[in-house]
This record gives sequence, structure tokens and C-alpha cells, in this order.
Amino acid sequence: MFSPLINQLIESLRCLPGVGPKSAQRMALHLLERDRVAASQLAQCLLESVERVRRCQSCRTLTEQTLCTICANQKRDPSLLCVVETPADVIAIEQAGNFSGRYFVLLGHLSPIDGIGPAEIGIEQLLTRVSEQGVEEIILATNTTVEGEATAHYIAEETKRLGVKVSRIAHGVPMGGELEYIDGNTLVHAFMSRHSV
Amino acid sequence: MFSPLINQLIESLRCLPGVGPKSAQRMALHLLERDRVAASQLAQCLLESVERVRRCQSCRTLTEQTLCTICANQKRDPSLLCVVETPADVIAIEQAGNFSGRYFVLLGHLSPIDGIGPAEIGIEQLLTRVSEQGVEEIILATNTTVEGEATAHYIAEETKRLGVKVSRIAHGVPMGGELEYIDGNTLVHAFMSRHSV
Repeated sequence: MFSPLINQLIESLRCLPGVGPKSAQRMALHLLERDRVAASQLAQCLLESVERVRRCQSCRTLTEQTLCTICANQKRDPSLLCVVETPADVIAIEQAGNFSGRYFVLLGHLSPIDGIGPAEIGIEQLLTRVSEQGVEEIILATNTTVEGEATAHYIAEETKRLGVKVSRIAHGVPMGGELEYIDGNTLVHAFMSRHSV
Repeated sequence: MFSPLINQLIESLRCLPGVGPKSAQRMALHLLERDRVAASQLAQCLLESVERVRRCQSCRTLTEQTLCTICANQKRDPSLLCVVETPADVIAIEQAGNFSGRYFVLLGHLSPIDGIGPAEIGIEQLLTRVSEQGVEEIILATNTTVEGEATAHYIAEETKRLGVKVSRIAHGVPMGGELEYIDGNTLVHAFMSRHSV
């Protein structure tokens, strides 16, 4: 019901996660009616990011620099290496604020059915880094999905051969969580992983 | 915690209505990790829209053509003119599907405090159109806000002088709405506007 170009803009906005037809329409009209300057800036920023953002050469997170801010920071402990699936996981851990080591971002998880093997998630680069840069402990912080667990297991097997300590972050009842509302799977895991006090 | 360019992209995405810092981060990472083609297309489409989308010369809605699809459609009844505030209102009425007349989009409402007077919402253009194009009835479909009501009142006064019929869409209890959940203001209006059966 809009003119072709506006329809196309609405359709393009739907590439954003969580944006359906109604939100896309609202966004398009908002930008065209009220904020064309911001729309142009967003367009420029998108083009520049798509052009320049690559992977950090050390940890594979997204950055437009050769090394990301964390890898370039000399104060971070190089002996602790946390392995995560996505750049968003890095941010979540950084916001918690008590980890002072470095990261390795897989940018995915093992998923043979989708053709994602060890090469795609940079296992070779991880092993090189572990053996060359004095990593003493690898903390596996992949997700608790089937693929995340399989990926953690695979990395544990591969890195143990290099003689480094490998650990997995703890899974159980979240802090402040009420038992009543915790799902059964988490409770089973919390009981299995109980420790003596 | 991201590199400067990614931070800038996240900031730019926040110009979209309803997008807070978390959603913007999710959108930026989604586009960069998984859908760079769509990101480029979105950027191109934004640039082209900002460049080419103007107002329809007849009804003032947003379009990249001289006349919008509705104004260009010879089958629409030129004697009925519906006055609305925004292009989104046109779409809502079109989707309801029983109005076969034409539209005039104010692209706003009278708001002296913000410096928006009759000239800014195209009253002159509306009056010219009413007197020159054989409009017989004007249907005022501005919002029921204070500004929307004031705008409707102003247009009614101005157009009555031209000898055309002026009507306001009905306000009251929505179809399928349960009285129990209707706000008091709407109920007061529904009682005042009651009609004999």
C-alpha cells in the first residue's frame, strides 16, 4: 500500500532480529518523517562496518582493528584463556567484571550437520595460541546446548594433550534464583554437581 | 567494550523507535556475524529512501513518485476526502478496506507551542484541493488527542466556509470491546454520543 521504495525499505528493515512487519513499518515511517539525518548516519555506519569490521587476529572477536581492545590490553593475564561462542558472550563476561584473563571467540559451535567443523570455529588457531602464548588454564564457557557441550568436550580433549589445565564454568541454580521456579534440567545438574561444604 | 566502529553502529541503530541498548547490540552483532549482505542492502535502501522519498503532491503522504498510489488511482472517489495525521493512519484505514475515497495527510497536527501552525500541516493546500477538485464531504480522522481534536476543529471551521459537508469519525466503545475494560474517558464519550435506535 506504500510506494515501491518505501515497501522495499520496510522489507529491508526486517533483516534486523526481532523486527516484524509492523515494527519495520513504524521504523521506516519514523525515519522518513522525523529523522532523516539519523537514517543517513545509520546507512553510512552500516556500510563502513560491513566494509571494515573483521575478526581480531588473536581472539577472533569482531573488530575493525588488527587486535581487539582486550587482546591489545597488556594488563590482561595471558595465562588464563576463556573460550566462548560469540562476541556477545565476551561482553556479558566483561560486564560481570571479575575475569582478568583473555578470550578466544569461536564465532559458532561444532555442528557437523551444518558443515561447521573444527576448522570453521578456529580450533587450529586456538591450539597454536595455547602452545605459543603461555596459556596455563583454559576456561570453557560455551553454551549449555547440545552443540555447546559437544564443542566444550572436543576442545577439552584437544587441549589436554598440550598439557594445560582445562576447566568448565559451573552450571546450576542461578544466584538469587528460587528453587520453585528453576527448570528440572538445571536442578538435576545442580544435584549431580553438588560439592561438600 | 566493543571497538569504536561497532560501538558507533550500536549507537546509530538506537535511532530506530523501540530499540534500546541491548536490542541495538543484538542487531549490530547479528548483522556483522550473520547477514552482511542484508546489512549492505539495508544501508543502500536507507540512502536511496532518504534521497528520493518526498511528499505526494496531492495528498502529502510519503512517496518517491509525484503522486502516491492512491492519488494516482482513477477509481478512487474524488468527492470523499479523509483527513489524517500520518501516512500510518492511511495504511490503517486502507487495511480496514471499506473507504473508497481519497486522503489528505497533515503529517502532524496543530501545535502552536512547537511552532506548528496551519502552514506546516498544509491547510492551504487542503483548502485549494477542496475548492478545486470537487470534494463534497471531508471526513476528519485525526487522533482523539487534545492536538488532534483542535486540528479537526480548526479544519472544520475553515472548510465549512467553502460549503462542503464536514464529518468526524465516530468515537466510542471499540467493536468486540468489553465495557469492563474500557477507560472512563471513552465511556463518557460513548454516552454523550449515544444515538436513538
